[in-house]
Amino acid sequence: RNVKVAILTVSDTVANGVGPDRSGPRAVSVVNTSSEALGGACVVTTAVVPDEVDKIKEVLKKWSDIDRVDLILTLGGTGFTPRDVTPEATKALLQKDAPGLSFVMLQESLKVTPFAMLSRAAAGIRGSTLIINMPGNPNAVAECIEALLPALKHALRQIKGDKREKHPRHI
Amino acid sequence: RNVKVAILTVSDTVANGVGPDRSGPRAVSVVNTSSEALGGACVVTTAVVPDEVDKIKEVLKKWSDIDRVDLILTLGGTGFTPRDVTPEATKALLQKDAPGLSFVMLQESLKVTPFAMLSRAAAGIRGSTLIINMPGNPNAVAECIEALLPALKHALRQIKGDKREKHPRHI
Amino acid sequence: RNVKVAILTVSDTVANGVGPDRSGPRAVSVVNTSSEALGGACVVTTAVVPDEVDKIKEVLKKWSDIDRVDLILTLGGTGFTPRDVTPEATKALLQKDAPGLSFVMLQESLKVTPFAMLSRAAAGIRGSTLIINMPGNPNAVAECIEALLPALKHALRQIKGDKREKHPRHI
Ligand code: NA
Repeated sequence: RNVKVAILTVSDTVANGVGPDRSGPRAVSVVNTSSEALGGACVVTTAVVPDEVDKIKEVLKKWSDIDRVDLILTLGGTGFTPRDVTPEATKALLQKDAPGLSFVMLQESLKVTPFAMLSRAAAGIRGSTLIINMPGNPNAVAECIEALLPALKHALRQIKGDKREKHPRHI
Repeated sequence: RNVKVAILTVSDTVANGVGPDRSGPRAVSVVNTSSEALGGACVVTTAVVPDEVDKIKEVLKKWSDIDRVDLILTLGGTGFTPRDVTPEATKALLQKDAPGLSFVMLQESLKVTPFAMLSRAAAGIRGSTLIINMPGNPNAVAECIEALLPALKHALRQIKGDKREKHPRHI
Repeated sequence: RNVKVAILTVSDTVANGVGPDRSGPRAVSVVNTSSEALGGACVVTTAVVPDEVDKIKEVLKKWSDIDRVDLILTLGGTGFTPRDVTPEATKALLQKDAPGLSFVMLQESLKVTPFAMLSRAAAGIRGSTLIINMPGNPNAVAECIEALLPALKHALRQIKGDKREKHPRHI
């Protein structure tokens, strides 16, 4: 079984060519390393957009509605600066919230640094695509994916309507 | 003092007669056992509906607006499958969110299993009725009620406007 | 650098002159004591309003849109009684949610008392103003500010668009 993953770096700096994309390649690497645990995941596409609601939404819609990828990870734009709008763009598109994923990422990140409380990351479902906002910091991306790994394969199977996955404990 | 509790099992399988309702009777049993701790709670009604937004909303509205029960527990439909829509039906009716209840259920459930992060359960107030989404798994239902017990009696008194309950520590 | 803080006590009792405002002065005192940690914070204004959505919104709008204070702390009105509407008034005005702040306040408050699960406090950004709902209990106010201190100065700098603050770990 194949799990298609798309990774969107949200960053003015990277989009404008002013700085390198450190989070994107790191996320690709973590997904590849965790491919088995994710049920056979592979990164099928990546993109970079500036911190603009319309541009973020455009890519998220294409990847979920047309390309129908299984999992989208956004990187960056989740903080408190005026340009940080990734959660707003994401929430405008989500059909179902997945607050438990945000909970676990916050809970685990707070063990690393109190600045994690400044993450405004959202997570949820659009169609058959799971969309998860992650921080822009490359180490934080790795830690967040790690935190979700124990249930992420299961989540992706549930979204596809797999009946065997319907009633695990606690859901 | 009497606390009227209503329990709604949300499940295609049970509604279609394909499988037994294991969560409903378990929830009734836990509420009865915890009756004192809940301020004299008794289950006044139960129902089963399929995983459909309109059917869920219809029952929740009747129980809160007409029957004016004090507490509604929904069981199931909080996961990631396409048919899981209990939180969406619930949130469409809530007048006030109660995110602290969801927080505690997540925090406690995650101690039992990482799959708890897949719960999308909502909780909040409509009129004088507290509505809480719980997982479909019978053991999880018991654990979630247990997690809320220390403050649930207090919550139900506050909703009724009990002045003596107005200013406990931390609210 | 100066951080302008405004404190709004939300309480029918205090607004009607029936009881003293214990939370307001306590919050002023905590902010003053933490002034350095907050980047040079000082309380520039305080007010008291009854538990009414319109009155709460009116003050929050004036303080954020006209007076452009950096931080607004509301005190009280976050519980389950029919008159508790501070989170609803606040959420109607927020342009961005800051769920991580609510998470940390809940997490820390729950270590003190299980009644903390009854807090429905919201937090988020309007323009360049951070608005945080806090409980009405004076001790709880102090504990909540304490819980946020490690990242609050940073949050306030990010909101103002400080570039040096753009990419700390985990955001
Ligand atoms: Na909403």
